[in-house]
Amino acid sequence: MTVADLFLALIHYPVLNRNGAIVTSAITSLDIHDLARSSRTYGVRAFFIVHPIPEQRDFARTVIDHWRFDFGRAFDSRRREALDLVRITATLEDACAEAEKIAGARPLVVHTSARTDRGVTFARMRARLEASDGQPAMILLGTGFGMTPEVAARADILLEAINGPTDYNHLSVRAAGAIMLDRLRGR
Amino acid sequence: MTVADLFLALIHYPVLNRNGAIVTSAITSLDIHDLARSSRTYGVRAFFIVHPIPEQRDFARTVIDHWRFDFGRAFDSRRREALDLVRITATLEDACAEAEKIAGARPLVVHTSARTDRGVTFARMRARLEASDGQPAMILLGTGFGMTPEVAARADILLEAINGPTDYNHLSVRAAGAIMLDRLRGR
Repeated sequence: MTVADLFLALIHYPVLNRNGAIVTSAITSLDIHDLARSSRTYGVRAFFIVHPIPEQRDFARTVIDHWRFDFGRAFDSRRREALDLVRITATLEDACAEAEKIAGARPLVVHTSARTDRGVTFARMRARLEASDGQPAMILLGTGFGMTPEVAARADILLEAINGPTDYNHLSVRAAGAIMLDRLRGR
Repeated sequence: MTVADLFLALIHYPVLNRNGAIVTSAITSLDIHDLARSSRTYGVRAFFIVHPIPEQRDFARTVIDHWRFDFGRAFDSRRREALDLVRITATLEDACAEAEKIAGARPLVVHTSARTDRGVTFARMRARLEASDGQPAMILLGTGFGMTPEVAARADILLEAINGPTDYNHLSVRAAGAIMLDRLRGR
């Protein structure tokens, strides 16, 4: 089955902190590793780390280069294979432009949030990706306590929140990203 | 709907390293946090950190106490709420005995592996948990490069591997645990 190209973008600005203030979050190496491995498992075409601060983007590059060259390459080729999917950009616009080059069409920008009671269902989003004329899609994942309303307003569509059988909805971004990809692409 | 009690156990020994040798892996604070939050989201009754080395179990306790008391309690009550589910035991047998006390019946021990082409499907396991006379279940998650055949042999049942549309199957244990819980308990 041919499916539309799927992209993932991890957003570090503008996001909320636990008090609801707008902040820039730090890149963590584990987010890169976990989400790259999940991306690779579910056939994501590219996983964008989006951060406005050059030093933070440099840090992300060192994490990736450690595993792509030298030590890491010999040590664990499967990590390298996942990290090959990672692209580092300053803005979401840059990520979308890169994705458009890869997919040949502008991706649908898909906002996600743990704190929404609206949004298109995962089943509908999955069907949309599997449609013969499916538009590529860029799934946004917020760090910290989620993306600001400004990011949501610029997205094309909102995906429903992930819900279990409880009222607790504080999954890590690594867990939420994995579950989203499984719902959209799992067998 | 009433469902059978579900438990999670993170196994640090005996597990394999990347070369296939049997090792004891180290506890990481992020495994505790991520899997506790996923457990809380999906209604897991208790999340067991299983480690044979006392110093490692002490380390796990300090991670949890930091968030349950003092600073952490005031800082983020949602983390505490998730960490309240964590139990630390030396062996899987101890974990099963504790789970039996909580659930009132011995749990079915469910082995998981990324490297199997057999195993009961997630749909069947879910149906089993949702059956009116459902036996409690303890899902085993291996650290490192997975649990040894010895652990598999002592389990009651094997769950199918998580598969995406690719042949890559190196999810992090944090991602794999989240996806399993979503498949067994997600809405």
